[in-house]
Amino acid sequence: MKQIAVVIADLFEDIEYTSPVESFQEAGHQVVTIGKEEGVTVTGKNQKVQLKVERGIDQVKIEEFDALFIPGGFSPDILRGDHRFVQFAKGFMEAQKPVFAICHGPQLLITAKTLEGRKATGFNSIKVDMEYAKADFLDQEVVVDREQLVTSRTPDDLEAFNRESLRLLNS
Amino acid sequence: MKQIAVVIADLFEDIEYTSPVESFQEAGHQVVTIGKEEGVTVTGKNQKVQLKVERGIDQVKIEEFDALFIPGGFSPDILRGDHRFVQFAKGFMEAQKPVFAICHGPQLLITAKTLEGRKATGFNSIKVDMEYAKADFLDQEVVVDREQLVTSRTPDDLEAFNRESLRLLNS
Repeated sequence: MKQIAVVIADLFEDIEYTSPVESFQEAGHQVVTIGKEEGVTVTGKNQKVQLKVERGIDQVKIEEFDALFIPGGFSPDILRGDHRFVQFAKGFMEAQKPVFAICHGPQLLITAKTLEGRKATGFNSIKVDMEYAKADFLDQEVVVDREQLVTSRTPDDLEAFNRESLRLLNS
Repeated sequence: MKQIAVVIADLFEDIEYTSPVESFQEAGHQVVTIGKEEGVTVTGKNQKVQLKVERGIDQVKIEEFDALFIPGGFSPDILRGDHRFVQFAKGFMEAQKPVFAICHGPQLLITAKTLEGRKATGFNSIKVDMEYAKADFLDQEVVVDREQLVTSRTPDDLEAFNRESLRLLNS
């Protein structure tokens, strides 16, 4: 069983949270939602999913977790305006722990300056940002780089995203 | 009287649309809202402002307008996923017509690859994107570059943003 940190704020893409989390939990892994403040309720951009933040960002340490998951929507942009989440994401990348980012999720990794020289994908609207950030952007349903970083483009890619994320968790 | 194109989609930052538009109109200028499709209603992210798209992006030409205004919020990210808006913004920058962008507005200019070597500012969360895009990012309430590009960071900067945008329109 692996411990997976999920960083989340309002306006996350609903299914990009629920689908991976369900597949991680079904495989026996544990998911912990981390937001700006413990106990706050956050709402997806399609208003379909509401969830409670289990741990505030000030209460967690990278060493407690085996992997980081960054759902998409506008949540990653909200999070990267707060340097604590940028440092948190940077820590996973530097420790070479698995990081799973879908859609706008890679925005947090751009701000952490951790995409340089990395193969990755993301939502169409952030393609140029990722290229400027020196990522090698690939237009594929899923990109796995150095068996550590898993990225996908949209909810349509969830099956491949979940499969490759689980593969790294189980390896 | 100048003609100002405003590019807009859902989840714009309400007051970053209303405040500049009111100040442009009070000064006698004309504002035209441009979205993906004519007649569609778009709603601000704070649900305070709803407006009708007056012209679809396929119906407009850069030559009809004297200036471009890009309000912030999540609207610019939605727009830059559509290459027609990227080309439209690029056209204003290349023609050296005045461009006013606040908060997340510069995202559209990043995707259009028009910030290289330009002095500019923007919302905290897009600072690293703008630096990667080779802009000279300045943490100021308003940045006016080459008497053509006006950028600001947040709604708190609106007074300075409106003042400098109007100054360019009137010059």
